[in-house]
Amino acid sequence: MRAEIISIGTELLLGHTVNSDAAILGRELASLGIDLHFMQTVGDNASRLAEALQLAVSRSDIVITSGGLGPTDDDLTKQAIASFAGVELREDEASMRRLREYFGARPMSANQRRQVFMPAGAEIFPNDVGTAPGCAVKLPENKQIIMLPGPPHELSTMFSGYVRPYLASLSQNIFYSDIVRTFGIGEGMAAEKLGDMLNQANPTIAPYAHGGEMFFRVTAKAGNEEQGKEMCGKCVERIREILGNVVYGINVASLADVTVTELIGRGLTLATAESCTGGLLSKKITDIPGASAIFHLGMTTYANEAKEKILGVPEDLLKEYGAVSPQTAKSMAENIKRLAASDLGIGITGIAGPDGGTPEKPVGLVYIALACDNNCYIREMKREGRYLGREWTRERAVSHALDMTRRFLTGLPVETI
Amino acid sequence: MRAEIISIGTELLLGHTVNSDAAILGRELASLGIDLHFMQTVGDNASRLAEALQLAVSRSDIVITSGGLGPTDDDLTKQAIASFAGVELREDEASMRRLREYFGARPMSANQRRQVFMPAGAEIFPNDVGTAPGCAVKLPENKQIIMLPGPPHELSTMFSGYVRPYLASLSQNIFYSDIVRTFGIGEGMAAEKLGDMLNQANPTIAPYAHGGEMFFRVTAKAGNEEQGKEMCGKCVERIREILGNVVYGINVASLADVTVTELIGRGLTLATAESCTGGLLSKKITDIPGASAIFHLGMTTYANEAKEKILGVPEDLLKEYGAVSPQTAKSMAENIKRLAASDLGIGITGIAGPDGGTPEKPVGLVYIALACDNNCYIREMKREGRYLGREWTRERAVSHALDMTRRFLTGLPVETI
Repeated sequence: MRAEIISIGTELLLGHTVNSDAAILGRELASLGIDLHFMQTVGDNASRLAEALQLAVSRSDIVITSGGLGPTDDDLTKQAIASFAGVELREDEASMRRLREYFGARPMSANQRRQVFMPAGAEIFPNDVGTAPGCAVKLPENKQIIMLPGPPHELSTMFSGYVRPYLASLSQNIFYSDIVRTFGIGEGMAAEKLGDMLNQANPTIAPYAHGGEMFFRVTAKAGNEEQGKEMCGKCVERIREILGNVVYGINVASLADVTVTELIGRGLTLATAESCTGGLLSKKITDIPGASAIFHLGMTTYANEAKEKILGVPEDLLKEYGAVSPQTAKSMAENIKRLAASDLGIGITGIAGPDGGTPEKPVGLVYIALACDNNCYIREMKREGRYLGREWTRERAVSHALDMTRRFLTGLPVETI
Repeated sequence: MRAEIISIGTELLLGHTVNSDAAILGRELASLGIDLHFMQTVGDNASRLAEALQLAVSRSDIVITSGGLGPTDDDLTKQAIASFAGVELREDEASMRRLREYFGARPMSANQRRQVFMPAGAEIFPNDVGTAPGCAVKLPENKQIIMLPGPPHELSTMFSGYVRPYLASLSQNIFYSDIVRTFGIGEGMAAEKLGDMLNQANPTIAPYAHGGEMFFRVTAKAGNEEQGKEMCGKCVERIREILGNVVYGINVASLADVTVTELIGRGLTLATAESCTGGLLSKKITDIPGASAIFHLGMTTYANEAKEKILGVPEDLLKEYGAVSPQTAKSMAENIKRLAASDLGIGITGIAGPDGGTPEKPVGLVYIALACDNNCYIREMKREGRYLGREWTRERAVSHALDMTRRFLTGLPVETI
């Protein structure tokens, strides 16, 4: 089975939007074992879209389009595809019900209504996080066009919820995937350690680097789910053996998720005192539904005065060692633990940049402290090579804090990786 | 003059890499006034690349390829293009000198050497930040293929340094863009208010919805930058008149950026007390470099006990009205303002979900309070229609808090939009 992607939108041609939809679809199709040889991008223009469709259908079995379905889009995409397939657009009743539900008592414009006009006879894919539904339109010779909305969050949610099962049902094999997540190992080192495993054919192992973490998608092509699961399971165990305890979870959502779940399981509470990360750690913890069981208090003490007066870091200590020091991180962790009467306390202080660095304390230097009842662990995060920006530095520091907590809870060395 | 982009690389089809090269090239071509109607992506496969070239050359004057030129790539791209143009690959002397200079005393592999074999007669573009040069290969009928390296940093540096001057000498127009950002108006309503303006040809107005906000990109095609700026300026003013004070800025980065800049400009400080948003507001404020001048303290009081003991919200008030109430939001805002000795204080309390709602206080209900010296403004954010998730609810509540602050600072109504 061969697929082709057509990305629709003048904003893509103008470079206002980077085409992340195409990458999402590429990964999804690869994991389903569906070949993808070509992608095309066209603007919001009916005749050029028709030209792209013609070409794609001539050489592929499944054509997936993204974009052009929202309330501010005109009906160009749907009309071009419907007329290509030789069917009419008709109001889809189930989609209309969902749209009414979405709007509740608010008025609905004609544009909104047009979104639920779909090619007659199409299989409809509901949009659980937006308003424009997607669909699959059948063509002769067992070919078809799958239309998906452009916003990446809507596209990926619709794909995993509806399109993936739909496509999987067309194939004789199933694809089973496991995700191995790591923190504390770089892409180059991981590739070196795994060596030839990265080239093996079934299961395949695809590495991804994202937000300072690495993860691996292990995908097996198999006759049924049980068989796929077993094939992946063996491969995952081998990866775990090779990479060791930088692996923080299999098929888990994130380091924050794993850490919060561990805390909940052990009935332990955590409090946070942040400086350079500015609330990002607190935000990541409370991203997880149910975090209120283990997280009662977080503080962003951005100014030295707040560190002293509100958090209780001694003035002398700040004067002697400076706000960015292991001593201040430790005091922040211990004080927030005391104030919140929690089991664990985290303190983070550093220089996120781009300004504020000195030769002794360069931009990118961060200290992370984890205080428990009878100890306080400290990590120094230093810039290695080029400064990668404020966001990267903050994300990375928060990942270190979560990793330290995860390691403490599971009995691993905390200060070193 | 019409251009077409061919992105080359199996990693693009597999979704391992997001195609940022195509967006860079799209922006560059638009700013040069060169039409771009199609983009194609193919893997590292000679016959499919030849197929893509054939199609592109048949309908475009300039075909720009990216990728496939580096030392770890084989010669597939260059060989396919050279044979398409009917020329041979020859060692380019000037490029060889640059390569030797780059390597200095270090040994050079055969792969490295192959990078400077270029199609005979091509115009060469030096690579100032990498090793693989690019080039322009002339074809019959005044057409040409421009080959650029894949790494985005190399591609964009080569484009601005060499390809832009090369292409500018071939074109007569420029494109100028302004961005109009809004908060507090939906996509459908904005489209209705702007009506036919959204269909005008020059300048064009393209609407985007992102993270609960709407923005509009206004783009003019003109003879020079000054003229383009003037055309956009008039159109931007018209949009501002129509949409009113939901427009929070032109060519600004974000609502947080505008708000922090306003605070810095007025020398006012802000402190935050968050419950359901869990530090997201604090994080967004401290995303902006220089925020330390106006933000000294933020608190995430997630538990009632923390609201009482650390923040000082009266126990009686929490008992009588509950944690999710305008009264609690007000008390949080006033107390954090007092604790931080700041000019403004924000309190946010609500139910981000997915659990924790009741019939009286459903999931999605959030109260946002802004305390200043002699007043406290409160907004109630209610779910309208379907619950859109924890992340959306939190993002939206934070945007409301920033919008209230921005409105207070600029003398607009604060509690209503």
